Amino acid sequence: MRTSGRPCDPVRSLFEPESVAVVGATEDPEKPGYLLLRNLIDLGYRGKIYPVNRSRETVLGLKCYHRVSEIPGEVETAIIIVPAREVPKTMEDCGEKKVRSVIICSSGFGEAGREGAKLEREIIEIASRDGVRIVGPNTTGILNTYNGFTSSFVKLSKPTRGPVSIIAQTGMFASAMLEHILTTQPYGLSKVAGLGNKVDVDDSDILEYFEGDPETRVVAIYAEGIRDGRRFIGVSRRVSSKKPIIILKAARTRSGGKAAETHTGSIMVRDEVFDAACKAAGLIRAGDIEELLDYTKVFAMSPPPRGDRVGVIAYTGAGCVMSADAIEDYGLRLAELSEETMETLRMYTPPFGVLSNPLDAELLRMKVGDAEESMRLSLEAFMRDPNVDMVSLVMVGLRRDSRIWKVDLRRVFSKIGMDHLEKPLVATIMASREVTEDFDEEMGRLGVPTYPSLRRNIRALSALARYYLKYGASTYPSNLNWHTRRP
Amino acid sequence: MRTSGRPCDPVRSLFEPESVAVVGATEDPEKPGYLLLRNLIDLGYRGKIYPVNRSRETVLGLKCYHRVSEIPGEVETAIIIVPAREVPKTMEDCGEKKVRSVIICSSGFGEAGREGAKLEREIIEIASRDGVRIVGPNTTGILNTYNGFTSSFVKLSKPTRGPVSIIAQTGMFASAMLEHILTTQPYGLSKVAGLGNKVDVDDSDILEYFEGDPETRVVAIYAEGIRDGRRFIGVSRRVSSKKPIIILKAARTRSGGKAAETHTGSIMVRDEVFDAACKAAGLIRAGDIEELLDYTKVFAMSPPPRGDRVGVIAYTGAGCVMSADAIEDYGLRLAELSEETMETLRMYTPPFGVLSNPLDAELLRMKVGDAEESMRLSLEAFMRDPNVDMVSLVMVGLRRDSRIWKVDLRRVFSKIGMDHLEKPLVATIMASREVTEDFDEEMGRLGVPTYPSLRRNIRALSALARYYLKYGASTYPSNLNWHTRRP
Repeated sequence: MRTSGRPCDPVRSLFEPESVAVVGATEDPEKPGYLLLRNLIDLGYRGKIYPVNRSRETVLGLKCYHRVSEIPGEVETAIIIVPAREVPKTMEDCGEKKVRSVIICSSGFGEAGREGAKLEREIIEIASRDGVRIVGPNTTGILNTYNGFTSSFVKLSKPTRGPVSIIAQTGMFASAMLEHILTTQPYGLSKVAGLGNKVDVDDSDILEYFEGDPETRVVAIYAEGIRDGRRFIGVSRRVSSKKPIIILKAARTRSGGKAAETHTGSIMVRDEVFDAACKAAGLIRAGDIEELLDYTKVFAMSPPPRGDRVGVIAYTGAGCVMSADAIEDYGLRLAELSEETMETLRMYTPPFGVLSNPLDAELLRMKVGDAEESMRLSLEAFMRDPNVDMVSLVMVGLRRDSRIWKVDLRRVFSKIGMDHLEKPLVATIMASREVTEDFDEEMGRLGVPTYPSLRRNIRALSALARYYLKYGASTYPSNLNWHTRRP
Repeated sequence: MRTSGRPCDPVRSLFEPESVAVVGATEDPEKPGYLLLRNLIDLGYRGKIYPVNRSRETVLGLKCYHRVSEIPGEVETAIIIVPAREVPKTMEDCGEKKVRSVIICSSGFGEAGREGAKLEREIIEIASRDGVRIVGPNTTGILNTYNGFTSSFVKLSKPTRGPVSIIAQTGMFASAMLEHILTTQPYGLSKVAGLGNKVDVDDSDILEYFEGDPETRVVAIYAEGIRDGRRFIGVSRRVSSKKPIIILKAARTRSGGKAAETHTGSIMVRDEVFDAACKAAGLIRAGDIEELLDYTKVFAMSPPPRGDRVGVIAYTGAGCVMSADAIEDYGLRLAELSEETMETLRMYTPPFGVLSNPLDAELLRMKVGDAEESMRLSLEAFMRDPNVDMVSLVMVGLRRDSRIWKVDLRRVFSKIGMDHLEKPLVATIMASREVTEDFDEEMGRLGVPTYPSLRRNIRALSALARYYLKYGASTYPSNLNWHTRRP
């Protein structure tokens, strides 16, 4: 967190305020105004917190003010969570106090009929008059895991810090997706912006802030409409060359566009136009949430590949065949293994075994007699092979109590000394639910992204290669630890 | 199980033998010959089991024979799990005993170099001379959940009986996929055939048996090569008109084809040719394992739709927008809600709410004040609406301890009387891991297929609609209970 002075950038004040007023703070544990303050305290936000509530003197042990303008010190940002009809008055108050920016969590605006639209116009007017920037309304707003600042009023799982920042358009969806990410994805988060009705601060504003944010290395966006498309593409083009941006733009079709009009009032852009602009700007486009999260994971956890040549280690012939199909489908190349790799593998393969890439690692297992050692041998050979730019590992397993294929992944990695091998590795397993869960968790801890299918392994590598072959690896921080992907 | 006489069909004897010899049975718990016998006993196979082992008098309490030909009674089928070099002699012995069919689990044949290939030719010769059919070699072979017959030598989770039968080419992959299905999929299985090296019995033989098998209602196939393509397409065309067949045919690309040659010696067919043949034959083609299992699930659990008009109930605007996109992408239509549905919904929607399909069910929740009741109202209206052929439900959730969106699905279903509503319903939730697991499990118990994304909801419905619009619903058993999808 900054330690000095007032920020010049009001968007930065949304993520890194030194002081915040919570208008609508309360001690009723059922109410958003309580949950929000609770989150701020529980996440360890160290800035000044000023609860504002007309009918209280303290809230959760903090001195409470009746109006924002009564607060003695400086107030950088205000979170507003009072009924919609009270928001304009609160905004006037914030303007008087020279608050930099407000996060309006309250709903009942543009999304709630004519009355709401009128209120929305009112607050926009006040804000632009007083030079206050708005996030929202109708959103859970902001989360910054690095300083514990948040405007979220839903009970959150404890976020892990990491390189990924997220921009999402809609409140409820953003919260649910956030919970999903926090409880299923092995990478950590940096910042989250739920933009709600987007009456002021939009994707481009946030992107520009992320551009300069050293704690953001990968950006994921869910958007239905982009208001100022030209600006967005311009900003994206600039930011893309420094940090990968993955975008799920919904409302692509005529029907989707119609649905979005009612939902967020977004006006549809012809999808071919938007798609071409994305490509030109270097944006990585995802077709659905799974793809968005698949790409986010591989970018968050992988070092840059030097090329597009994939090595596949598969513990079943079917895995070899399907991987080869996927590599061709996704425009990557099968690596030609180096003579050194071939020699190493040959030593541990029965005479009848046909060695090639994809490698049927079952051949090694037959000769070596042990799944773990065969995995170490093949993985080490592939990770060291200069002809292999990226590796996809395809395992099979049965039940937790089955001795076949029992592999101590941590031991394998430590024997290889994986932290010195700077090459993307993705993995998948076909097995019982419990074995799959064990595998995914352990691989996650080892810093390796896993996917539910070998095809999604390859799709992720393909996005990774396309991006880094375009922009080079120069912007990737060289001091990242291979396992944690953190400096 | 049949109670009379000897079957005319040797393929049937592979699934429904009244007697089986297990050649290579042993009491060493590390050995496949033990695990296999253990599985047969544990799954409750009621036919006669004859262990065969030259050096034992009993195995697991059963009288043991030194040779198949020494067994006094009739032996319909033999499972062979001795070292490859001993298999020809065993086959001679089986021929002498007039065994109908053998399942050769042993590996070390065509997949294991020149020596193996020679052995493979030998056993084919013996079998064709004696009129014995072979499954395998190099496979885990057969599983029939209805009579407990199996040749699998991997420790299996207890299979649930159900409508789905599976044909897979490769042993290890088939076993891993089977474990995956048993522990993650809510439907039950009927028969599994792992065909291994496919030296004799192939996909077409098994399909013909499934055609007449009353316990098989849906067929899923993983294949790399189809030896007799003409016959396969002919048989598929006939069976497809009675039962949906979903096929994942790998080795589609040049690279995949090359990998398959080493793996199963399959010769590649030009994929456009195969694809056209599939379409003509009514086969439902899947591009990867996830798609194969997604389609299998929807066919196993859903009644036939009467048309292609989809109704979407989504608890977030983003769900509406993305669902509409997906429906257009997958060639389905958004249902136009009936006047009756619109009237019902209008009663429970705030005046500013725009009612349409996809329905933003959050509107109802705002007025009704309760997620569960709003879900009942919208689901009941959609399930009864004659203009809606299929329903996709898109939920959001947070943590297990979050009160928002807490819905007792069983109570909702029982209030609606869902067992009378014969219409496909699929569901998805975006939430924390634990809430997602709860949702999937409860929905599975209620007979509703769930998917990890709304896009996969729609993709599954699209496959369902295409199939039933082509073949009609006449073959779908009318006495299935909506919840269990079982008579």
